Amino acid sequence: MSTAELSTWLDIPRTHPFGVQTLPYGSFTTPDAPRRRVGVAIGDAVLDVTAAAASLLPGRAGLFAAGSLDALLAAGSRAWAEVRAAVTMWLTDERYRDAVAPLLVPASRATMLLPFTVADYVDFYASEHHAVNLGRMFRPGSDPLTPNWKHLPIGYHGRAGTVVVSGTPVLRPSGQRRTPDGEVVFGPSTRLDIEAELGFVVGTPSTPGQPVRLADFEQHVFGACIVNDWSARDIQAWEYVPLGPFLGKSFATSVSPWVVPLAALAHARVAPPPRNPRPLPHLDDADAKEWGLDVELEVRLNGHPVSRPPFAGMYWTAAQQLAHMTSGGAALRPGDLFASGTVSGSEPGQRGSLIELTWNGAHPLVLPDGTSREFLADGDEVVITAAARGPGGTTVGFGEVRGLIAPAWSR
Amino acid sequence: MSTAELSTWLDIPRTHPFGVQTLPYGSFTTPDAPRRRVGVAIGDAVLDVTAAAASLLPGRAGLFAAGSLDALLAAGSRAWAEVRAAVTMWLTDERYRDAVAPLLVPASRATMLLPFTVADYVDFYASEHHAVNLGRMFRPGSDPLTPNWKHLPIGYHGRAGTVVVSGTPVLRPSGQRRTPDGEVVFGPSTRLDIEAELGFVVGTPSTPGQPVRLADFEQHVFGACIVNDWSARDIQAWEYVPLGPFLGKSFATSVSPWVVPLAALAHARVAPPPRNPRPLPHLDDADAKEWGLDVELEVRLNGHPVSRPPFAGMYWTAAQQLAHMTSGGAALRPGDLFASGTVSGSEPGQRGSLIELTWNGAHPLVLPDGTSREFLADGDEVVITAAARGPGGTTVGFGEVRGLIAPAWSR
Repeated sequence: MSTAELSTWLDIPRTHPFGVQTLPYGSFTTPDAPRRRVGVAIGDAVLDVTAAAASLLPGRAGLFAAGSLDALLAAGSRAWAEVRAAVTMWLTDERYRDAVAPLLVPASRATMLLPFTVADYVDFYASEHHAVNLGRMFRPGSDPLTPNWKHLPIGYHGRAGTVVVSGTPVLRPSGQRRTPDGEVVFGPSTRLDIEAELGFVVGTPSTPGQPVRLADFEQHVFGACIVNDWSARDIQAWEYVPLGPFLGKSFATSVSPWVVPLAALAHARVAPPPRNPRPLPHLDDADAKEWGLDVELEVRLNGHPVSRPPFAGMYWTAAQQLAHMTSGGAALRPGDLFASGTVSGSEPGQRGSLIELTWNGAHPLVLPDGTSREFLADGDEVVITAAARGPGGTTVGFGEVRGLIAPAWSR
Repeated sequence: MSTAELSTWLDIPRTHPFGVQTLPYGSFTTPDAPRRRVGVAIGDAVLDVTAAAASLLPGRAGLFAAGSLDALLAAGSRAWAEVRAAVTMWLTDERYRDAVAPLLVPASRATMLLPFTVADYVDFYASEHHAVNLGRMFRPGSDPLTPNWKHLPIGYHGRAGTVVVSGTPVLRPSGQRRTPDGEVVFGPSTRLDIEAELGFVVGTPSTPGQPVRLADFEQHVFGACIVNDWSARDIQAWEYVPLGPFLGKSFATSVSPWVVPLAALAHARVAPPPRNPRPLPHLDDADAKEWGLDVELEVRLNGHPVSRPPFAGMYWTAAQQLAHMTSGGAALRPGDLFASGTVSGSEPGQRGSLIELTWNGAHPLVLPDGTSREFLADGDEVVITAAARGPGGTTVGFGEVRGLIAPAWSR
């Protein structure tokens, strides 16, 4: 039986993004049980997997005892498949109903936590449209893409310690910037932005010194989530030459609470765009399995849709990013998170950042409520959602990453 | 009684860099006891602090039970002072001799481990001489310092997962580079280099969103160690525009096994160099306590001294780096490590990297054994040591960070 034909004993509409085709993992508490547990989203409920595994999958219960995904990530791809098969069975085989139904928590009662301990956080820059747009704005008169861009997936390390879960308020950062008349000042960022991205979560570690091949992507990467890589453009523009972004990014990076397993994304795989020049052998996926992913993101600002970035057009895939990241011998650890870079498509309505949507503030976004934005205002709330094609016409949902801008801290 | 007058019941020469004025912390095992323990270096021995605290400081024994410095770092500055006072007493008061002497392990029998779990790793760029030298080589014809350099301590996040302890072999990384005739190739780095630095280890966490002031440096930073930030210059040069160093640095960063508490560096504090322009208020230490540190580094290549970088001349202090790093609201975690950037002085013999010592390979180093080096060869061993002024004419030693270059991995 393929997953396309699966049906659950729960009353879930076939169109629900959290049907049995998805089964994403998260970590949650409830008001009456403050100890954190691992959950799987199913419809509008959360299955308490920590409790379910204790009785129904005792041989793997240890993976869920601590209530985060850390142990599951480290357990490797065989364990991931085994647990997913078990959870699928519990939710589709009527005989488990009596045991499992009491372990379902309404999603509205669950407080979602950061699902795993972030080891190293890397942010890539893999959308050609985004890179070209930023190059045109920041380096006018020169080639918008730097000479290396089509030879390797450009990336940099971000701050793992400030990755926060959806719903965490984002304080407007303060920092140094240079004003248009050349004065250097310190104060709250005046150009606070978003970056709509997907993030990939590493499970299985790799051996120090040994690269991970493109073909081994699924052995190491557990799943994907939505990332909002908040960016203070004024701080970033002043600080980033020559060593790259630092404080313009390090104040907060928000992730969705649900990690969608790669196994749920099999039907979303598509060919990546053609590459020219052909990548060097360790990055060449022409004859490898395709890791383009047809995932549609949507960005809403104070409830109004402002962009629909298409992930399928990303120039570099996550498999290439992983192969590049490890090609120099850097080892992977469970909990490493690497994000795609801003997802921007070719159309203006597909751009994944405000700096692109407003063309560096030159064309403010006019919202249906009559207000306009060049960048984010205090009190603004940004919600990014994402969904992919699932089996049999279903949708595989990623949930959302949400963030409300709070005023800058002052002493 | 000041520490200047302390004497120990152990038979240690007054000139020993690990006298009672130093008391650095590390983590070790021995062949007969493979469980890791916290140690304090004293002379040519290591005091098993995990065992000593269990009997002599039971109220704090939990800080050492796991055998790494993690719990001690998180315990905060009051605990640091209390433990240092206790260890000092054990080693100077004859009445503790019978209890403590059996807990001393010859240093030659101790295998030193990475002393703490690295949370986020940040590398700065704080030596003006180093930044000018690199600017002259990489951006000839333009101002060697970028416009931001004297306004803020430039830094970037590195890879925490590849920070390794002294003695760990360093595999030559492979990576992409562009050859002088413009071809893009992948292979073992041909320009493998060192960067001699000091690293600062954060203990007390900070509140997300709230900057740490210059004056609070000692509340948050536990101590310092030696860092060798290995760098593949060819990989770095090709990848680093526009988002900064990535694979050119992420294959390995070596740290010394001993973390010297700030308390041991009180006599090494000196005025930092004059700054022009005067830094913005949050970075202005003109009226604050001085955090310049008179620490002399020495770099030896295959046993031959090749450089003596003076830390006292660093333009930005560690206190300023901490204030900058948190000025946008990024929180600190126990185990955050931030390194100074390459320490280079004004003289050619004071440069902390081979790219400076050989002026980008133009003037190879000729070693006393008759060989010469532009960059590192397989089999080369680099040892960096450091020492500071202690009380009463003593020396506060940092020990060493050692690394042997192993050939590139091949499948």
